[in-house]
Amino acid sequence: MEITAMPRTPMRAHTLPGKYFASQEVHDRETDQIFLKQWICVGRASSIIEPGDFFLHEMDGESFIIVRAASGQINCFYNVCRHRGTRLQQESCGHIKSRIHCPYHAWGYDTDGNLQSAPNMMGAEDFCVVDHSLQSAACVVWQGFILINQQQSVNAFQTDFDEVLHRFDDWELDRLVSAHQITYEVQANWKVIFQNYSECYHCSLVHPQLRPITSVETASNDFTDGHFLGGPMILADNYKSVTMSGQWCGSPLQKLSAEDLRRVYFYTLCPSLFISPHPDYVLTHRIERVNVGSTRIVCNWLFPPEVIQQDTFDPSQAVEFWDLTNRQDWEICELTQKGVQSRAYRPGPYSGLESMLAAFDDYYLALMATA
Amino acid sequence: MEITAMPRTPMRAHTLPGKYFASQEVHDRETDQIFLKQWICVGRASSIIEPGDFFLHEMDGESFIIVRAASGQINCFYNVCRHRGTRLQQESCGHIKSRIHCPYHAWGYDTDGNLQSAPNMMGAEDFCVVDHSLQSAACVVWQGFILINQQQSVNAFQTDFDEVLHRFDDWELDRLVSAHQITYEVQANWKVIFQNYSECYHCSLVHPQLRPITSVETASNDFTDGHFLGGPMILADNYKSVTMSGQWCGSPLQKLSAEDLRRVYFYTLCPSLFISPHPDYVLTHRIERVNVGSTRIVCNWLFPPEVIQQDTFDPSQAVEFWDLTNRQDWEICELTQKGVQSRAYRPGPYSGLESMLAAFDDYYLALMATA
Amino acid sequence: MEITAMPRTPMRAHTLPGKYFASQEVHDRETDQIFLKQWICVGRASSIIEPGDFFLHEMDGESFIIVRAASGQINCFYNVCRHRGTRLQQESCGHIKSRIHCPYHAWGYDTDGNLQSAPNMMGAEDFCVVDHSLQSAACVVWQGFILINQQQSVNAFQTDFDEVLHRFDDWELDRLVSAHQITYEVQANWKVIFQNYSECYHCSLVHPQLRPITSVETASNDFTDGHFLGGPMILADNYKSVTMSGQWCGSPLQKLSAEDLRRVYFYTLCPSLFISPHPDYVLTHRIERVNVGSTRIVCNWLFPPEVIQQDTFDPSQAVEFWDLTNRQDWEICELTQKGVQSRAYRPGPYSGLESMLAAFDDYYLALMATA
Repeated sequence: MEITAMPRTPMRAHTLPGKYFASQEVHDRETDQIFLKQWICVGRASSIIEPGDFFLHEMDGESFIIVRAASGQINCFYNVCRHRGTRLQQESCGHIKSRIHCPYHAWGYDTDGNLQSAPNMMGAEDFCVVDHSLQSAACVVWQGFILINQQQSVNAFQTDFDEVLHRFDDWELDRLVSAHQITYEVQANWKVIFQNYSECYHCSLVHPQLRPITSVETASNDFTDGHFLGGPMILADNYKSVTMSGQWCGSPLQKLSAEDLRRVYFYTLCPSLFISPHPDYVLTHRIERVNVGSTRIVCNWLFPPEVIQQDTFDPSQAVEFWDLTNRQDWEICELTQKGVQSRAYRPGPYSGLESMLAAFDDYYLALMATA
Repeated sequence: MEITAMPRTPMRAHTLPGKYFASQEVHDRETDQIFLKQWICVGRASSIIEPGDFFLHEMDGESFIIVRAASGQINCFYNVCRHRGTRLQQESCGHIKSRIHCPYHAWGYDTDGNLQSAPNMMGAEDFCVVDHSLQSAACVVWQGFILINQQQSVNAFQTDFDEVLHRFDDWELDRLVSAHQITYEVQANWKVIFQNYSECYHCSLVHPQLRPITSVETASNDFTDGHFLGGPMILADNYKSVTMSGQWCGSPLQKLSAEDLRRVYFYTLCPSLFISPHPDYVLTHRIERVNVGSTRIVCNWLFPPEVIQQDTFDPSQAVEFWDLTNRQDWEICELTQKGVQSRAYRPGPYSGLESMLAAFDDYYLALMATA
Repeated sequence: MEITAMPRTPMRAHTLPGKYFASQEVHDRETDQIFLKQWICVGRASSIIEPGDFFLHEMDGESFIIVRAASGQINCFYNVCRHRGTRLQQESCGHIKSRIHCPYHAWGYDTDGNLQSAPNMMGAEDFCVVDHSLQSAACVVWQGFILINQQQSVNAFQTDFDEVLHRFDDWELDRLVSAHQITYEVQANWKVIFQNYSECYHCSLVHPQLRPITSVETASNDFTDGHFLGGPMILADNYKSVTMSGQWCGSPLQKLSAEDLRRVYFYTLCPSLFISPHPDYVLTHRIERVNVGSTRIVCNWLFPPEVIQQDTFDPSQAVEFWDLTNRQDWEICELTQKGVQSRAYRPGPYSGLESMLAAFDDYYLALMATA
């Protein structure tokens, strides 16, 4: 992901100490410092089109209801009744007709979270209806992704995402839809997954099928510090995209420059998203931290709707390539997770090809250190 | 369980904070403050009739031997040899011929816990036999229930149970025997189970089959604070009991007043028993706290022995009704357990129909606060 | 294991308090005070004959590579790459051709642990190759056993094992090989296993098949304190060895005295080995502490290679006898583990037949107390 000509740092950066991959205390601090404060990707807006459509998102033992309101806005509510705390929705996705009803005592909320009915309570003199709306998390839609934030307001989003707000306009990312989804459960810390994605030093050994298509020598980075990291690699001459055949799945995306038609990009968005734009599709990895030693990864292959609707459309050349590559990565990530838990593990030296890992570690440590 | 005309409290009571349903620290304090100090129901005396009959009771990682001694008295011993600590009895129930023998080095104890044989030890000058009796817990039989107490003596029982000692004489509870038993494993804190039993606010939505038989408007309470809580509901005109058919299973209990023949009662006995007298049978729930998020519930349908012996006796109308109702309750309890563990859960307001829950919480918090 | 005529101690010794069998805190202190500091048996040298032969040893969440180097010496390395910490070897045993290669970025180490190749790193001015050798543990071969030590050097071994260095020369233990191996998983603390092996007070009840062969009255001890404990029992007149038939499996060991041909010995080597020399074979138990309540035990039946090669050789008479006896022991150990976790368990008095348990406890407590 980085050009080899890049000067090495005088004091060579080293990997994180073992506690960052194995300690429950670090995990709990990450919850407070990162997962409660940062924007977390929970899915795509295209999965809940009609008012009342919803899905549940589970995270850190919490359950959230992500619902399209009557106004068309998408809201995010904690799946907890304001009466006795009962979980309101059990189905992982579906449609709410008019009210979110608690199955215990029939308290009912509208899709904006307002309490609309509560048998034996409404009208009681010491019961204030507006004090009993569902609790919510901030929720925005950006480039078709739904992102939630448990501690910041929606207003903060523009600033937080300022540098990448329009980065993906040429790929029309906001209107792409998923042609295929695969969910992986990996026995490795979420940061091992981020670090693995952020270098191609391992590609020659781990991904033989990737070697002829994108060479590590062509990698460079246009985001090199902070929240958003990564950059392009250049496709080899006889390849049009990263697929099993080396050809496009369908057609190239229409607004791309000639330069972008010869490139594939790899971006990480800490702590929950990888975006990999290709000439003909965008691959996304949604990262869910499960516990200190395991991570769930939801991979989607996004295409323009008009391409998917074509009779001849077949995403399998792209799906098969990255599913193979993913599985190779998860295997090596799991071996790394086992090793970094050893008493004998000491931080090791990053090579010049791993500068994005050092940048990720710097940003991560800064988030963890904030008061 | 409470008449709706009851005046609401000026400061409306709220549910317990989330830690009381999810914290290991609270669980451990409950062990010290409640489960080691209070009388715990472990079963019915009618299950061990002959001297030597025993069953094991498992609780908080402990195993107890409950055994009928030669004198007819029921004793409760820790299932731990005084030599090397070996578990003595493994079978969940059975009959001890003359000695409780340790399977390791053959130390033998009589059914009063006295060490009677110890190869290579008996007679040694520095070995005192009477110092090596089995350790015991206090054990009483009340209304046919066996109750044990790990920290109090038998003498304390009369005072502790003073207000209810003779409450169930009319149902002749001491001589009733179980016609059916079902054990449930529920993924909810034991207090969620107590709270669910203590209100019928949820009945209209959760228990449609109960609605025509007992109306929440007829509920009242004759025990409203402390250890023992609850009271009666009145049967609707065309129902003789709470059964699938609405008719008696067998015959009504003989000593009941005309008033009690039209009532069903719901009592909680913190922390391990529900007693639900009906005109023709008594339903009991024995509650076993398993861990902070799970509870075992042993449900029995008790009838007079002469009724059970009748050729035509069939308890299924009562069993089927309450098994259905129980399962509805456990499902909603499990949903509540999930919700109260949320970071977003805040104590919610009790309605006027939930005054017994507020009373339970008050008593529970007082037990937890005692030095 | 001890003669009954032995005088009883004036202050009778008692078993260890319950926390030593059930507390995670004690377990963690054992790691620091015992398992990191003592020599741990990991297997037999005869299992890795050729240079490059290796096997993995797992212990306390660590993975070790035990490998025969080109020089013939056996080395022990932490299975952790010095770059990103990745686990190097996954197969439980096998052969390394020339390099231990990391599967992630192809760093390669020789069988002495030296880094020999590291793509994109070797030759960089700020990268020091010799700083990135594999981390090792001290490793010695004694009587054919491989022992490792994570904190002491090889030089310490001679002193640590001084008193038993040549104890087994008559059995030619260094050249014996395993004719059979059985691995057991036992739900008991490792010290319960040691204590069970160290007395025959339980034999009459637990091992009826052992009773006629070796009588507890014939037991004595030649190592009575410290690291190494135990001694002989005398075979009954009509038995030549401890086997199902009472006859030898093959032939008696050639260098044994007439006295040793009539004896079986039982020795414990804290914290990982039992050695039981018989007239015709040596039984060994390798003890692996798994966690506070469970232990893995690898049992081997060792014979001279020329005996094993005989067409008529059949170890089943010895294997069957001790497999039966082992299983009886594990069952009673599991019952003891359950009991000693009880709140009611109190240290109990050791009989005169259990003096080796008191000696084990003394040595163990001294190791635990060392600063």
